[in-house]
Amino acid sequence: MKIAVDAMGGDHAPKVIVEGVEQARDLYPDLEFSLYGDPSKVKPLIQNSERLKIIPTSNDITMGEEPVRAIRRKKNSSIVKAAMAVKHGEADAFFSAGNTGAVLAAGIFIVGRIKGIDRPGLTSVLPIAQPGASRHSFVYLDTGANAESKERNLVQYAYLGKFYSENVLGVANPRIGLLNNGAEEDKGDTLHKAVWQLLNKKDDLNFVGNVESGDLLFGKADVVVSDGWTANAALKATEGTAKMMLKLIRHGILHGGLRAKLGYLMLKPIFHQIGQTMSTSTYGGAVLLGLKAPVIKTHGAADTLTVKNTIGQIHTMLKAGVIDKTVDFFTNNPEVDKPTKNA
Amino acid sequence: MKIAVDAMGGDHAPKVIVEGVEQARDLYPDLEFSLYGDPSKVKPLIQNSERLKIIPTSNDITMGEEPVRAIRRKKNSSIVKAAMAVKHGEADAFFSAGNTGAVLAAGIFIVGRIKGIDRPGLTSVLPIAQPGASRHSFVYLDTGANAESKERNLVQYAYLGKFYSENVLGVANPRIGLLNNGAEEDKGDTLHKAVWQLLNKKDDLNFVGNVESGDLLFGKADVVVSDGWTANAALKATEGTAKMMLKLIRHGILHGGLRAKLGYLMLKPIFHQIGQTMSTSTYGGAVLLGLKAPVIKTHGAADTLTVKNTIGQIHTMLKAGVIDKTVDFFTNNPEVDKPTKNA
Repeated sequence: MKIAVDAMGGDHAPKVIVEGVEQARDLYPDLEFSLYGDPSKVKPLIQNSERLKIIPTSNDITMGEEPVRAIRRKKNSSIVKAAMAVKHGEADAFFSAGNTGAVLAAGIFIVGRIKGIDRPGLTSVLPIAQPGASRHSFVYLDTGANAESKERNLVQYAYLGKFYSENVLGVANPRIGLLNNGAEEDKGDTLHKAVWQLLNKKDDLNFVGNVESGDLLFGKADVVVSDGWTANAALKATEGTAKMMLKLIRHGILHGGLRAKLGYLMLKPIFHQIGQTMSTSTYGGAVLLGLKAPVIKTHGAADTLTVKNTIGQIHTMLKAGVIDKTVDFFTNNPEVDKPTKNA
Repeated sequence: MKIAVDAMGGDHAPKVIVEGVEQARDLYPDLEFSLYGDPSKVKPLIQNSERLKIIPTSNDITMGEEPVRAIRRKKNSSIVKAAMAVKHGEADAFFSAGNTGAVLAAGIFIVGRIKGIDRPGLTSVLPIAQPGASRHSFVYLDTGANAESKERNLVQYAYLGKFYSENVLGVANPRIGLLNNGAEEDKGDTLHKAVWQLLNKKDDLNFVGNVESGDLLFGKADVVVSDGWTANAALKATEGTAKMMLKLIRHGILHGGLRAKLGYLMLKPIFHQIGQTMSTSTYGGAVLLGLKAPVIKTHGAADTLTVKNTIGQIHTMLKAGVIDKTVDFFTNNPEVDKPTKNA
């Protein structure tokens, strides 16, 4: 199995990308890598070139660029060339820590959508932080590939999330929840009321009803489905609040004198554990589900460990054949937004 | 100035309501109160009946009831009778800790909208938690009175928030931000792109651009305007995450042995300070702005202190004449969603 890697994307590229790839290569003997990037920068970083080759690129896409224009114009960029390799069957998956919009655009316009999927959904694995919960993470989509969504899109996300949860996280019959502004059936705007009814009438979905954004981390579902706009707002608020809470604790300790510093030393293992639980790095990258091959984006600030973990996630996706299973389902169920039971 | 109080709403009513009202009465010599409720329950709780009378009601609206139907049918409930008193000029403001939907419905259908306002916005004051920030709170609306909003509504919210920030929080020329999914001008769905352009073309608004939900508590604006759907999702995610972080710390301390317990004792003042900063009680109740009189809802779990603080907030609103200023503005600016400058 071969992974096409954008070696130039991310704040600490190509260094952490090459390091993470080498660590993953040593861990997974069935993986090969193509590193797309500037050879004069990438080559000196490589310790061992086993199952690892460099494909020269130029003309990088930077973080601020308008994504669709960038992938149209910069044909020789690492993002475009890596995505083209997947399109032409020269690689099985595409990984990048670069410009999110450009990675999404390359995924949709170059790698291409699975037949039957209108819009791919950007999918994150997030923590179930609830102490004592039997599972430690859940699947959350669409976190922002689409600012405007239709009923049909959300039903497709439910199946995309279900296959991911089953095959990558190993959850049997995952509980599917709908992100909404209240727990009851009749809550929400027109779109969410309609999606509730559709999901509830599917005999192959274990639909458990609405999940409010305040309950996201509490483990009420294994897959939480949402339009991209709302999921993005709730995800950013969750991340921002966690960051602010840690900042307030740090500020308090720094300005709290010796007593606070001693207290910090005693609670350090607990703060470390909470930091781990809440860190996005623990759960890998964001997958653009609904494409013909795995396309995974990790955040720009990714370190070596995050790169290694994200490649582990791609390895699991490839081994589990999650894309093939998704293709099969949508081929056999072209009208996925039609009810299948009289609930 | 007279406040009509729903003495029966909230988890700990009428006890905490009566206690909070008595404390506020002692603090503000210019306030009088009408307590709407069951005299057999309310009267025994009253210590001193100075500037305080009971108006008997029956047939309470409970927490789970469908709001609009409830206020239509239960004419003798504390919520309906208190709102009617405001409508008939017998009271200047309405306060409740009861069924949120019923309070909103009573506000809109009984107290009534200011001419020129299409939809009132539910408004919360939230913490600016950023250490060292010069201000400690900001105005946030609509937090959920409307699940579906139009451009015009968001422009009206900007002015409602501005008047509240100026008159109640004393902020000169408040910075107005738009909750959106990115910082740049061209971010967002159709609605938010259009609202950005409208707000930017107002010469009487200090518009500072988009605010992302992850930056809500970081103090980038004094008023953050949003459609009710998105603001509600981001607010609940913020509250839920803060709650989860505190839960994780508590769990870690409980299961961390003697060392963790000692650490907790040393950091207790810091945790207490963070709890204060993040607590909704610190910032008063949610105001339904855009009505002909102050209508304020505090959360069902409110304690005596929260009731007292929320009445302090109503006192400030009445003294500052924020409603009169809002009425004047919308009377003189019937087409508030038209540009006033060529930006």
